[in-house]
Amino acid sequence: MNKDFDVLKYIKDFPVLNKEVNGKRLVYLDSAATAQKPLSVINAIKNYYENINANPHRGAYFLSTASTEAHDNARKTIKEFLNAKYSEEIIFTKGATESFNIIAQSYGMNFINANDEIVISISEHHSNLIPWQQVAKAKGAVLKYLYLDENGEIPISEIEEKITSKTKLVSITQMSNALGTILPVKEIIKRAHEVGAVACVDAAQSIAHMAVDVQDLDADFLVFSGHKIMSPMGIGVLYGKKHLLNKMTPFLFGGDMVEYVYEQDTTYAELPYKFEGGTQNVEAAIGLQEAIKYINHVGIDNIENHVQQLLEYAHEKLSQLEVVTIYGPKELHKKGGVISFNIKDVHPHDVSTILDSYGVAIRSGNHCAQPLMRYMNINSTCRASFYLYNTKEDVDIFIDSIKNVRRWLGYGS
Amino acid sequence: MNKDFDVLKYIKDFPVLNKEVNGKRLVYLDSAATAQKPLSVINAIKNYYENINANPHRGAYFLSTASTEAHDNARKTIKEFLNAKYSEEIIFTKGATESFNIIAQSYGMNFINANDEIVISISEHHSNLIPWQQVAKAKGAVLKYLYLDENGEIPISEIEEKITSKTKLVSITQMSNALGTILPVKEIIKRAHEVGAVACVDAAQSIAHMAVDVQDLDADFLVFSGHKIMSPMGIGVLYGKKHLLNKMTPFLFGGDMVEYVYEQDTTYAELPYKFEGGTQNVEAAIGLQEAIKYINHVGIDNIENHVQQLLEYAHEKLSQLEVVTIYGPKELHKKGGVISFNIKDVHPHDVSTILDSYGVAIRSGNHCAQPLMRYMNINSTCRASFYLYNTKEDVDIFIDSIKNVRRWLGYGS
Repeated sequence: MNKDFDVLKYIKDFPVLNKEVNGKRLVYLDSAATAQKPLSVINAIKNYYENINANPHRGAYFLSTASTEAHDNARKTIKEFLNAKYSEEIIFTKGATESFNIIAQSYGMNFINANDEIVISISEHHSNLIPWQQVAKAKGAVLKYLYLDENGEIPISEIEEKITSKTKLVSITQMSNALGTILPVKEIIKRAHEVGAVACVDAAQSIAHMAVDVQDLDADFLVFSGHKIMSPMGIGVLYGKKHLLNKMTPFLFGGDMVEYVYEQDTTYAELPYKFEGGTQNVEAAIGLQEAIKYINHVGIDNIENHVQQLLEYAHEKLSQLEVVTIYGPKELHKKGGVISFNIKDVHPHDVSTILDSYGVAIRSGNHCAQPLMRYMNINSTCRASFYLYNTKEDVDIFIDSIKNVRRWLGYGS
Repeated sequence: MNKDFDVLKYIKDFPVLNKEVNGKRLVYLDSAATAQKPLSVINAIKNYYENINANPHRGAYFLSTASTEAHDNARKTIKEFLNAKYSEEIIFTKGATESFNIIAQSYGMNFINANDEIVISISEHHSNLIPWQQVAKAKGAVLKYLYLDENGEIPISEIEEKITSKTKLVSITQMSNALGTILPVKEIIKRAHEVGAVACVDAAQSIAHMAVDVQDLDADFLVFSGHKIMSPMGIGVLYGKKHLLNKMTPFLFGGDMVEYVYEQDTTYAELPYKFEGGTQNVEAAIGLQEAIKYINHVGIDNIENHVQQLLEYAHEKLSQLEVVTIYGPKELHKKGGVISFNIKDVHPHDVSTILDSYGVAIRSGNHCAQPLMRYMNINSTCRASFYLYNTKEDVDIFIDSIKNVRRWLGYGS
């Protein structure tokens, strides 16, 4: 392992990781579903409610001004984290799902027409899939999929054949939550722009694992959820290029997103407020800011290296078990910190339940990617995912408990 | 004041109220914008992230099961708090604004047609107004307003004339956030049902101040935000009668709200999950549950009485100042814990800023009710609002600082 990365130093920052589950130390391998929170984030929430709490905007008193400033500062931190050009390109949402629904409703429903084509990949999470089904159905557009080859990768030919002058929007995950595959989004965006299409990136997984630079990617839209990078729940981000956000209609109508409201008509506020109707979740915005500070403190490159090393170690150990099938790319540098696998003749749900008795938390299911599962001719998988606070010892316990699964169920090995 | 209600005992539960602002003790009179949080709510958040945090649903390990159970339990507490018939009639949203947008999009856009009429009152918050403008515009329907008489009340004649067989939906606030007026929602709902219309209630203010019983009201929909009853930010509730929710289309499309997802088609989950796409804000649901427990501990009737007494006391003192104009009903039992007022020749923003220097936090502005302000021929008001943690002494400091406002600006008195 990377000797410069003292994982034990960071584990101490996560109270939940000191917990025992079923008499065993908790080995948390479900960060792809949600990441654990460091004390600095938990304390930021506590501090907000104990010292600042007020409804931001328009309040002319101390707490409200402090709350407004805190919210604005959080936006600036996110702008820098994504290397966006303008703060007003950062829209606060309640999560990646809402972010995608905003793009689909406010951009898709207005600018995609009959016979236009929308291109996504077969690896997409339902949140980057069903909203496009809705747009396609409502507008008479066509929803096309990029499929994977036998290595679990999207061939260049697939990109060139599917993304054509008919394509008006391409929306692709940067890292599959189900298989861990890292997709060539930069190349896909380039192709999208060549044919005049708008390109969205699902960074819900990648944001936790690698430096994400919206200007370098040249993404038109990019979304993520805070809770997967250690922020409180209930907050997400929609990044959009200013000229696109400006021409979109609002999504939620209500307070704080207006300029003038008459009985029969309303004019809307400027960016970013146009998309931020209702009282904002200042707590979670501050928590997200604190989570980003924590990532910057550890270093995103260090996190990426550490997770990659855990992945390689786990992959090697798991590959030695004959009863285990691992899904996704064979070349590990094309994969983030996720291993999706099955054990011969054992249902993933049972694997997860048995691992739980060893204190090991993994996810089982279709990972909100049913079309991908169907494409791979499976119903579901077990998924172990790693983050900065996981150790080699976590992997060892995970592998040992996997070895016991078939024994537990009465198989020989 | 009510001798049985020991407000000083409760104040200790609110850390922020021990704060000094500009060298003065904080007098927080902006609970109508957002309520302060008791320690039990703050600790519930901390406990969740330190001991339970996991993505709920479908996880077969300890933390995820615990997180799912906590989320389900929170829903049950809210169901009981509102006296709903079924738990699945309680939909978690990010706030009242999102709740209204769901009703407007998923009910309004599907069941309101050309020339149908939607009736709201002129006292509505923008969040219960702009969504209906949108429906009216999109469907060619008519948006009608119930206006106030010179006492600031809606006359019965107005209700009978406006709510007719053409009316398909009526949406009314139970308590105006701008003036504090308590509206006769039960009578309005009765009238709506007589003509075959569906009735929505905005309980964003009332929920903090009085017992709200959806079965007694016979409300078809009712919405509120958690943060106004001391929960964390980022959570709200949409209550809807099961048969109505069942026939509505989903609002946010993504994970967890589906049954089967195919490449071109999707079938949706049962209630309440159909309306809960994406990772749920478990933290805030638990926080909301804890806030409701706190209200039940203090007693909603005690809160109502205490706030009413503060209102009467403040009203009496404020009425004695000749330079002050108070808006809203004269009969105080028709009013919740809100006083909306102006000081002669002083802009509300200046009042708020000057009061801040005395540690007194009030709101100034149009209170997200521009049509109401226009109807009353004013631009904005000052608004002081009271909650269970306010004291007679708070009112005294507020009144004393009000007396200084004109002096501060160089007027004689």
